[in-house]
Amino acid sequence: SNSPEKAGYIITANLLNYKNGKIYPVNPKISEVLGLKVYPSILDIPEDVDLAVVTVAAQNVPEILGECARKNVKFAIVVAQGFSDAGKEGEALQKKIDEIVMQTGLRVIGPNSMGIINASNSLITTFVPIPNLKVGDIALIAQTGVFCGAGLIWLLSFNFFGLSKSIDLGNKCDVDDAELLEYFLEDPDTRFIFIHMEGVKDGRRFFDVARKVSRKKPIIVLKGGRTDEGARVVASHTGSLAGLENVYNAAFKQAGILRVNNLEELLNLIQALKFSPLPKGDNVAILTFSGAFAALLTDLCVENGLKLAKLSDETLSKIRNLSPPYVNISNPVDIWPAVMVKGAENVYPVVIDALLNDPNVDSIIVFQGFSRFFPEFWGLNPRIILKHLDRVVEKPLILSTIGEPLTVDELNEVTKLFNEKGVLFYQSIDAPIKVLNQLRQYKIYLDRVERKEV
Amino acid sequence: SNSPEKAGYIITANLLNYKNGKIYPVNPKISEVLGLKVYPSILDIPEDVDLAVVTVAAQNVPEILGECARKNVKFAIVVAQGFSDAGKEGEALQKKIDEIVMQTGLRVIGPNSMGIINASNSLITTFVPIPNLKVGDIALIAQTGVFCGAGLIWLLSFNFFGLSKSIDLGNKCDVDDAELLEYFLEDPDTRFIFIHMEGVKDGRRFFDVARKVSRKKPIIVLKGGRTDEGARVVASHTGSLAGLENVYNAAFKQAGILRVNNLEELLNLIQALKFSPLPKGDNVAILTFSGAFAALLTDLCVENGLKLAKLSDETLSKIRNLSPPYVNISNPVDIWPAVMVKGAENVYPVVIDALLNDPNVDSIIVFQGFSRFFPEFWGLNPRIILKHLDRVVEKPLILSTIGEPLTVDELNEVTKLFNEKGVLFYQSIDAPIKVLNQLRQYKIYLDRVERKEV
Repeated sequence: SNSPEKAGYIITANLLNYKNGKIYPVNPKISEVLGLKVYPSILDIPEDVDLAVVTVAAQNVPEILGECARKNVKFAIVVAQGFSDAGKEGEALQKKIDEIVMQTGLRVIGPNSMGIINASNSLITTFVPIPNLKVGDIALIAQTGVFCGAGLIWLLSFNFFGLSKSIDLGNKCDVDDAELLEYFLEDPDTRFIFIHMEGVKDGRRFFDVARKVSRKKPIIVLKGGRTDEGARVVASHTGSLAGLENVYNAAFKQAGILRVNNLEELLNLIQALKFSPLPKGDNVAILTFSGAFAALLTDLCVENGLKLAKLSDETLSKIRNLSPPYVNISNPVDIWPAVMVKGAENVYPVVIDALLNDPNVDSIIVFQGFSRFFPEFWGLNPRIILKHLDRVVEKPLILSTIGEPLTVDELNEVTKLFNEKGVLFYQSIDAPIKVLNQLRQYKIYLDRVERKEV
Repeated sequence: SNSPEKAGYIITANLLNYKNGKIYPVNPKISEVLGLKVYPSILDIPEDVDLAVVTVAAQNVPEILGECARKNVKFAIVVAQGFSDAGKEGEALQKKIDEIVMQTGLRVIGPNSMGIINASNSLITTFVPIPNLKVGDIALIAQTGVFCGAGLIWLLSFNFFGLSKSIDLGNKCDVDDAELLEYFLEDPDTRFIFIHMEGVKDGRRFFDVARKVSRKKPIIVLKGGRTDEGARVVASHTGSLAGLENVYNAAFKQAGILRVNNLEELLNLIQALKFSPLPKGDNVAILTFSGAFAALLTDLCVENGLKLAKLSDETLSKIRNLSPPYVNISNPVDIWPAVMVKGAENVYPVVIDALLNDPNVDSIIVFQGFSRFFPEFWGLNPRIILKHLDRVVEKPLILSTIGEPLTVDELNEVTKLFNEKGVLFYQSIDAPIKVLNQLRQYKIYLDRVERKEV
C-alpha cells in the first residue's frame, strides 16, 4: 500500500532496514512504494523468495499461500486475523491453510501474527514501527502481537536489555513454540528465552523440548488463561485451549520453566538471570535499616519458600564490633544503629563483605530507604556500596530501595554499575524475594539435571 | 546538642518551624543552640510545658520522665530504643516508664519513637529532616520510625498526596493505635488513616474503635509479622506479639479495615479512596487493545473475587457499530480492531461513555499500551480520553498502562488530570484489579453498616 498508516506500507518501511537481502513488494493496484518496484503477484517476482509477509484479508489468505507454494517460498508470515480466533467460518478458513502446509511443505507463521524481528540483521516484518532496536541476547516467542510490540518497547526502554529475535506465533497453525525452542537452543545470539503463551498444541513435545533447552538456556513463561474465565477469553482470542492450570504448573516445574505473571516480573527476572550467580541453597541474609522492613522482608522470604540464614559467629562478631552495645545482632541485620554510630561508609562495606564470606549465607538482600535529599542519612548512597565492592560477587546480592523513585536514566545508570559486579538492583520490596525464589527454583532444577534425575 | 548530626540538634531545628508556640531546649552541658537559650533541666523552664521530646539514652529516660511529671508536662515523646525491644534489662526499664505513667498521669508516646508531625501547624519532632512538608488529609500511625521517614518521603514525592498528621508509636507503652483512631475520627484535617502495625496491645478495644471509625474514614493497615519467622523479628524489634495471622485477618475484615502489603499498594489504594467512587457491585468491564491482556486481566479479576460484567445489548451494539464485522464483541472488549478502522479519537470516548451508562457494569478498567513515540498507534493518548470525558464519573473507572514508563512529573500531571474527573490512573496490570477489589470490600462493609449488621 502507499498509505503510510496501512500495515503493508509500515511493513515495507520496516523491511527496508534489512541488511541481508532484497525486498519485493506485491500489490496488483500500485506499481511503486517507497522507491521499490511493486509486483502484481508473487509469481511475477524474477528471483527466488525466502520469506513472504502476507497482509491480505483473511478470506484471500489461502489463495496467496497457494501462490507462495507454487513459487517455492520457504516461509510465509500471515498477519490477518479472523481464523480459529473467529468462530466456525474462521476455523474453516484456517483448515485451508493447514491443507496447504500439509500438501506443499510451505511453512507458515500465524495466522493472526504481528510478525518477526531478527535484531542481528534488522529483519523487521511487524506493522509496528520499532525505533532504536537494541541488539541483545533475549529471544521472545509470543502468541500475540502485543508482546512483540508493547513488550518490546517496554524491554527496550530499559537500556540494559536487548533482543536477539522476536516471533509472534499467533494461532500457531504450523510453526509452534517447540520448534522455535529447538532453534533457540542452537542460536548463538540467544541466551534467554521468554515465551508468552495462551495454549500449547502438542504438550508432550513442547515439554520434552523445553526440558532439553532449559538446562542450557533459561526459559521464562507468561501464560494467560489461569482461570476458567481467562481460558474462555483465550479461546476467543487465539483459539487455544488454555485450561488445566495445575497440569501446566506441574509440567512447567518438571521442565525447569520459570513462570512470571506480568512484564515487571519478567524484567526483574531477566536482570537476575543475566547478571546474578544462582544461590546454592535457601539461606538468605537480610541487611536493612529498619526493624519494620526486616519483619516485612522475613514474611516475604518465608512465604516464598526461603529461609533466614543462621549467621556464622565470625559474621556476628564483625557486625557487633560496629554496633552500639545494646543492639542484639541476628539475621535480619538491622544496620541502622551501627550506621548512626559509625557512618554508612564504614558500615556497609564491612558487613556486606562479611556476609559474602559467610558459608552459612546463600544469598543476600540489602534493603534500604533512599532519597536524593539525604543519601547519607538514609544509610544508602548506592555509590558507597559500589565504591567499596571490589569484586564480582559469587552469590546472589540484591540491593533494593524504597523512597523517592529514581528517574529511568538514574535507575539505568545505577543498575548497570551494580550489574557489572553481579549485583542486582530493584526499587521494590517484593521484587528481590520473588526473584531469589525463581533463581533458587532454577538452581534446584539444574542440580537435578546434574544428578540425571530429569 | 550543638552537633548538627545529633538527634537533639535536628529535632530543635525541625521544631523551629512550629507556628503555635515556644521551644525550650534542655541540656546541662550547653547554654545556646540555634539562637535559643538552653535550660539545664526541664524544671528550670519558667513557663508551662505542653510537650517534651526526650532524646536522652534509655537508662536516663525514667529520671527525665519523672522531672516531666513534676513539671506537669502533658505529653512526652521518648525517642530512645533499648526497652521492650531489647531483652530483659530493657523490659525492666520500660516497666519503670509504665509506673510513671500510672502514678503521675503523664502521657507517653514511645519509647523507640521517631516522633510526631502535625502538618497544619508544622510541629515536627522527628530527627529526620522533612523537606517540603505537604499538607493533606492522610494521617499516619506507625509502629516504627521508618514509616514516618521513608514512608513520608515516598508519599510526599507523589505530589497529589499530602499529610495531616503522623505519629510514630514505637513500643506503645502508653498511647496506642486505638486512642489515635478516636482522635482522627474527630480531626477535621484527616480523611484517611494509614496504620503500620506489628502488634496490637488491647485487641478488643482496637477493633471496637476501628469498627466505629472505618464507617466514616477508611483505615488502611500494613502489618509486619504475617509468618512465624516474621513475628519473631517483630518481637525483637518493638517487643510486640504479632502472630495469629488468621485472627488478625478476620478481625480486619470485621472492622472494615483494608489491608495492604507494601507501600506501593498503599499509594495505589489511597489514590483510589481519595478520588474514585465505590463500586456498587462485582461486575467489571474490561476495555483493552489486546486479547492477550484481556486474558491476563480476566485471570486477575477472577482471582480477586470480581466478575466480568455481562454488557447490555445497547452497549454491545454501540461497540459493534465501531468495529469491523468479523469481530465478536463481548467483555473483555478488544478495542484494537475498532481503533484500526475508526481511530482512537473516535472509539474510546464512545465506548467509555457506553460502559459508564451500562447498568450491568459496576466498574471499568481501561488497560492500554503506551509509548510517547506512538501515542495514536498504541490506541492511547491519555489526553484523548481526558478531552472527551466531559463529566465526573459516578462508577470506578481505572485507566492503566504498560509500556514506556512515564517520568514522575508526567505521571503526576496525567494522574492529577484524571483524578479531577474521578478517574484513577496506574502504570501496572495488577494495580487496578487489586484496588478495585479493595474498594469493593469497603463498599460491602459500608452496606453492612447501613443495614446495621456491623
